[in-house]
Amino acid sequence: MSNQIRVGIAGYGNLGRGTVEAIKQCPDMELVAIFTRRAPENLVLNEPNVEVLHIARAEDYQDKIDVMILCGGSATDLPDQAPYFARMFNTIDSYDTHAKIPEYFSIVDNAAKESGKTSIISVGWDPGLFSINRLMAEAILPNGENYTFWGKGLSQGHSDAIRKVEGVAGGVQYTEPIAEAIEKVKGGANPELTTAEKHRRVCYVVAEEGYDKAKIEQDIVTMPNYFADYHTEVNFISEEELKENHSKLPHGGFVIRGGQTGQNHKQIIEFSLNLESNPEFTASVLVAYARAAYRLNKEGQVGAKTVFEIAPVYLSPRSAEDLRRDLL
Amino acid sequence: MSNQIRVGIAGYGNLGRGTVEAIKQCPDMELVAIFTRRAPENLVLNEPNVEVLHIARAEDYQDKIDVMILCGGSATDLPDQAPYFARMFNTIDSYDTHAKIPEYFSIVDNAAKESGKTSIISVGWDPGLFSINRLMAEAILPNGENYTFWGKGLSQGHSDAIRKVEGVAGGVQYTEPIAEAIEKVKGGANPELTTAEKHRRVCYVVAEEGYDKAKIEQDIVTMPNYFADYHTEVNFISEEELKENHSKLPHGGFVIRGGQTGQNHKQIIEFSLNLESNPEFTASVLVAYARAAYRLNKEGQVGAKTVFEIAPVYLSPRSAEDLRRDLL
Repeated sequence: MSNQIRVGIAGYGNLGRGTVEAIKQCPDMELVAIFTRRAPENLVLNEPNVEVLHIARAEDYQDKIDVMILCGGSATDLPDQAPYFARMFNTIDSYDTHAKIPEYFSIVDNAAKESGKTSIISVGWDPGLFSINRLMAEAILPNGENYTFWGKGLSQGHSDAIRKVEGVAGGVQYTEPIAEAIEKVKGGANPELTTAEKHRRVCYVVAEEGYDKAKIEQDIVTMPNYFADYHTEVNFISEEELKENHSKLPHGGFVIRGGQTGQNHKQIIEFSLNLESNPEFTASVLVAYARAAYRLNKEGQVGAKTVFEIAPVYLSPRSAEDLRRDLL
Repeated sequence: MSNQIRVGIAGYGNLGRGTVEAIKQCPDMELVAIFTRRAPENLVLNEPNVEVLHIARAEDYQDKIDVMILCGGSATDLPDQAPYFARMFNTIDSYDTHAKIPEYFSIVDNAAKESGKTSIISVGWDPGLFSINRLMAEAILPNGENYTFWGKGLSQGHSDAIRKVEGVAGGVQYTEPIAEAIEKVKGGANPELTTAEKHRRVCYVVAEEGYDKAKIEQDIVTMPNYFADYHTEVNFISEEELKENHSKLPHGGFVIRGGQTGQNHKQIIEFSLNLESNPEFTASVLVAYARAAYRLNKEGQVGAKTVFEIAPVYLSPRSAEDLRRDLL
């Protein structure tokens, strides 16, 4: 189809792989090329119609790609890559360093405005879908409180921290919301809760032979910043169990607002995700917003945007008439 | 404050009363007047700064009101009132006759385009917030299925039907989602479910003296369209219990999408509401979208819109910068 949206991917880790899968579910889109900083010939891809190219080649594809989906990380990749690509393409990214979003927005906005492109930043589920729900729930119930819970989900940063403990051969960490805290919030009590009061940390650890498990556990639960402030549970398992039961990347969470209207009527709005694959889901959100970026740019709406500025209709491949008839 | 959004209300039933309460929670808004078809002097209102006027007076208020919130019903009020008011004001309504939405949209669109006003139709939670979630979940997970459950909630139409049964002195009907059906859907099984397989109907009935309760129950559960196709439970209670425990208007429900990404990873998106007062919550949604209608009109975006065409940022009184910093 010549009127498909032509998509490129920059970065080929878990998120990039998820994006390849997500585009396959969208008949209105075509994946043209994947750009990588590695040697392209070393990247194994089972997609015969997709080119794999070094990232330096992107500038040759400005007429061949409508939207570039940036699948790099927030710490080091995106702060450089987003303005670089925004000078050539409409872009989507999943920048998630909350504290630096205003600064990042401004850098990408300048680049996109210069080139007349449209860049939607910080897309995914948090930031992303969770953010939309926080905003809308607050606007609808001004007299109330927002709560965000994460998990049950694998935390990459905390898993890395476990693996650096002496005597640990391998391990993963799941963040789990505390059921009692969720129930309190859903009951409309609007309690004050710290992040540690909302979540516990559950670790599955493989000990190296000859090391004292009690000491390993102690080293984990007292680790500052990562575990010391939380209720932390450490389970020792075998190498085989780790591979078999803990190799997936599940995640999810809840955004709940408890509010009051009129004569103290309690009103609860809740949005939740239960994801077997966090990167594949995040990629699916990026792809839906790629459709939006393409359309907004056609309308002349250039510069950086966030999910807050995107009307739902831009995400769907269906016409406004169909959506009104079938989904309203 | 002279830069408040000046709001009018047309229609003063449960929804109109809820709208008065919702506006009080919005410092950026001012309620100017309520328009009614009844004799205005018979309408008791505890709001000293709000005028109560006959609906025919609305045309004198075109310079004094920025947005008119239409609180009439879908069956007979809105099809006439929405185009009438759209010729004079930006409007918001909660038109919910799903099958007739395309026709209604077109009528309101013509009126609003003629006057250069902005009308957001079918606002509330279903249609409304539920519709947004159906659209977004489908766009993000194309390979999947949407499920909408309603309740636990009081159904006005079914309560009226009960009260017409011979020997019934009073009664209410709650629609309740069936827990097993919800669990199946949340588990990602994507089952085929009819409305009757998703919901049961629970009735609380006051029998008149001298009538046979078994016969009343039989008359209710076999009533075509309303109850015959459903699992229906009838509970007999006293007049006092009816007044004490069943005079509120709770409602709520769930929109759940079960989808698959990549190699059959299950992904569940869920949005739910648990409302102690259905009309007050619906009113709170109308008021947030009144803010959007006002702003869209200032930008020159005239004609009829639905919630699908409204970006989240328009709902919040806060600036885009604040929202990016605090809620993204």
